[in-house]
Amino acid sequence: MSDSKQSVAHGTFPHYVWGVIDSHLQTDFPDIRNRSTIHSHYGTCMVIPREGDRVRLYIQLANVEKDDSNERMDRSKITPKMLMDSARQIFSPYKLNWPDVEWWTIYIVSQRYASYFADENERIFIAGDACHTHSPKAGQGMNASMNDTHNLAWKLAMVIKGLAYPSILKTYEFERRNYAKQLIEFDRTFAKLFADKPVQSTDEVGVTHEEFRSVLQMFNGFTSGLAVMYEPSLITGRVSENQSLAEGLPIGKSLMSQVVVRHVDARPFHMHDQMPTDLRFRVLIFAGDCLLPAQLAKIEEAAKALQALAKRYTPPSGNYDDVIDFITVSSNPHAEYEKESLPSFLWQNKWKLFCDEVAIDGSGGNAYRRYKIDKTNGAIAVIRPDGYVAQVTHVSALGVKEIDDYFANILVPYT
Amino acid sequence: MSDSKQSVAHGTFPHYVWGVIDSHLQTDFPDIRNRSTIHSHYGTCMVIPREGDRVRLYIQLANVEKDDSNERMDRSKITPKMLMDSARQIFSPYKLNWPDVEWWTIYIVSQRYASYFADENERIFIAGDACHTHSPKAGQGMNASMNDTHNLAWKLAMVIKGLAYPSILKTYEFERRNYAKQLIEFDRTFAKLFADKPVQSTDEVGVTHEEFRSVLQMFNGFTSGLAVMYEPSLITGRVSENQSLAEGLPIGKSLMSQVVVRHVDARPFHMHDQMPTDLRFRVLIFAGDCLLPAQLAKIEEAAKALQALAKRYTPPSGNYDDVIDFITVSSNPHAEYEKESLPSFLWQNKWKLFCDEVAIDGSGGNAYRRYKIDKTNGAIAVIRPDGYVAQVTHVSALGVKEIDDYFANILVPYT
Repeated sequence: MSDSKQSVAHGTFPHYVWGVIDSHLQTDFPDIRNRSTIHSHYGTCMVIPREGDRVRLYIQLANVEKDDSNERMDRSKITPKMLMDSARQIFSPYKLNWPDVEWWTIYIVSQRYASYFADENERIFIAGDACHTHSPKAGQGMNASMNDTHNLAWKLAMVIKGLAYPSILKTYEFERRNYAKQLIEFDRTFAKLFADKPVQSTDEVGVTHEEFRSVLQMFNGFTSGLAVMYEPSLITGRVSENQSLAEGLPIGKSLMSQVVVRHVDARPFHMHDQMPTDLRFRVLIFAGDCLLPAQLAKIEEAAKALQALAKRYTPPSGNYDDVIDFITVSSNPHAEYEKESLPSFLWQNKWKLFCDEVAIDGSGGNAYRRYKIDKTNGAIAVIRPDGYVAQVTHVSALGVKEIDDYFANILVPYT
Repeated sequence: MSDSKQSVAHGTFPHYVWGVIDSHLQTDFPDIRNRSTIHSHYGTCMVIPREGDRVRLYIQLANVEKDDSNERMDRSKITPKMLMDSARQIFSPYKLNWPDVEWWTIYIVSQRYASYFADENERIFIAGDACHTHSPKAGQGMNASMNDTHNLAWKLAMVIKGLAYPSILKTYEFERRNYAKQLIEFDRTFAKLFADKPVQSTDEVGVTHEEFRSVLQMFNGFTSGLAVMYEPSLITGRVSENQSLAEGLPIGKSLMSQVVVRHVDARPFHMHDQMPTDLRFRVLIFAGDCLLPAQLAKIEEAAKALQALAKRYTPPSGNYDDVIDFITVSSNPHAEYEKESLPSFLWQNKWKLFCDEVAIDGSGGNAYRRYKIDKTNGAIAVIRPDGYVAQVTHVSALGVKEIDDYFANILVPYT
């Protein structure tokens, strides 16, 4: 960290203490094999069914001495017996019995994030626990940290390989610090919710069952990582009127996978399985209705412009898709057309042409509908190497011009 | 082989010769990435798409010298060039080009099976190529051989472990020789079909496209192994009026898997994944509607009888399901009842209670319908360790009596 830029922690000191026990718990609680949360007058407990007969309990400790000052809590005061006693109160009238304790620990919830995630020259970066700490309840310690380092890694790799300009490194702190801030704000709401007493109606001071449920459901977005939405930057387009071409591909959010059918052999594939994390940007050409001459003309001009784009960023000795991968999805089923009726740029790699249709196993057929793309006119989307939607545009030469402009600020041209 | 019992071959000597080439074939044939069969005036060719860009062609050689005598064909006369020339004629007007030949071979189709698969004392057994040879077209050489040895292995293992009576060994030859005979008879029909010329109408001498297709579809049963149906024996019940309790579980055929939902955690599972090949017989209790008092009474008497059955064959130190595994599937969804409302024998292992309902991912909910089991009255099925349906009966003490009788001839009791 440079002297001129100190990374200091923003946030609160311990207020919430959680105990965790892994065991082959014996109980008559009927939902013990389901992910469930018990919100009681004696505190809150989360049930995480694990492999085999194992169960993890997250138990909120209501009666531990806390300290509003900056002093650390005394962990040595807490014993597994205290965790079990709390859990028994929370589960009552159901019985709990621990034949073993495989592992246990105490989490002291500090909700803090650092001022900076990088020095001003983008030479030193911090990630994970070094720049944010928060509640362990949804396993976001590990998940947020992996996403930090993934976000950083692909940018560093592309810069080091000379494929991208160093300016993309600035987006690391911009994206991940914002996310840490959002996560911690949400975690605070969530932690308070768990600490509040359950009540029967909104007239009382506390949390009703309905309020509790609704916040838990919002929390699923953070748990799954799908709530992340990156703000506009060098690498993420601004949400413009183009977004209406594919409202199901929100700019700044992770692409949701759909099953599409490969033209050459009619086999169904999840789009995510066609998009490995391999440092390549991806251009998804939802070609629309390629049997309509007017649309085919647009597809042809777009393909010509994309071919020029591919050439610009590809080493002369390389393959056309070494830096940017191109995947085409027609709205027509595979039996309606031969691939040769499309511009060869779109099927020179025959594994890259797909169709939005129901496959023999009943999967697929929902891509255009879920992405809210018009089946006649289609749309083109640019996907970042980490799977986030960067841009949405028209199937036309003008549409590809916008993609040209996007890459001009990011990728180093060869020609 | 004992002197008194010679195993001799039944069948024909070479009449059909097939060539096989694996390569990165280049072609403008549009269906090259699909499993397809080309039946032409120049012969027949099968296309097997393989991993990556590889393609396997099975090419029928029309012009090879054949010999109706018992003499072997001269393989040295055949070259890859001959295979390629034949394939080019068959594919015309599409073009074929071989940039490489990864592997090639010639198959001479001998359709033969042995008189005996075992000596008269059941001490020596033969399996696989030792007792049947036939066309390689559907890969049944390997598949039939694996099924031979699997059929033999579980019987041998149960006898050697002292779990089953040696008399079950007689069913090996009975079951697998019949199958080999059926397969070879079908293969003969199939081989002739391939050799016959394509014609436009049934008035001409030859095979129409429709006839060709329909036999190909029948052949899928042999390819997938699902056409196997074992005749009644010590280990496979006779088809009686009980079959009407579950027409979708044909006695003598392999159980088709359905997705069912586990009661304890509402997760969907394929039944096959709950039935590993682990030397255990399985009793599937399709309990019917367990919310109806009259049906629940039948479930209770059946469970009591099954518990006695389990005890009879289980070592005193063992688990109740060491020799026979019990899996229960209610027609009621999991949310409609607590497992404690059923006899504890059916849920003492909580992972073994399932429900016929649609799971959160949309799978499941078809088990009773596909097995054609009444949702009120249910049915009990006995499944052999190799997954074949052995018996179907009523949910009642009398029904379980039939299961008792079945096992009395097979399993060695402990008590």
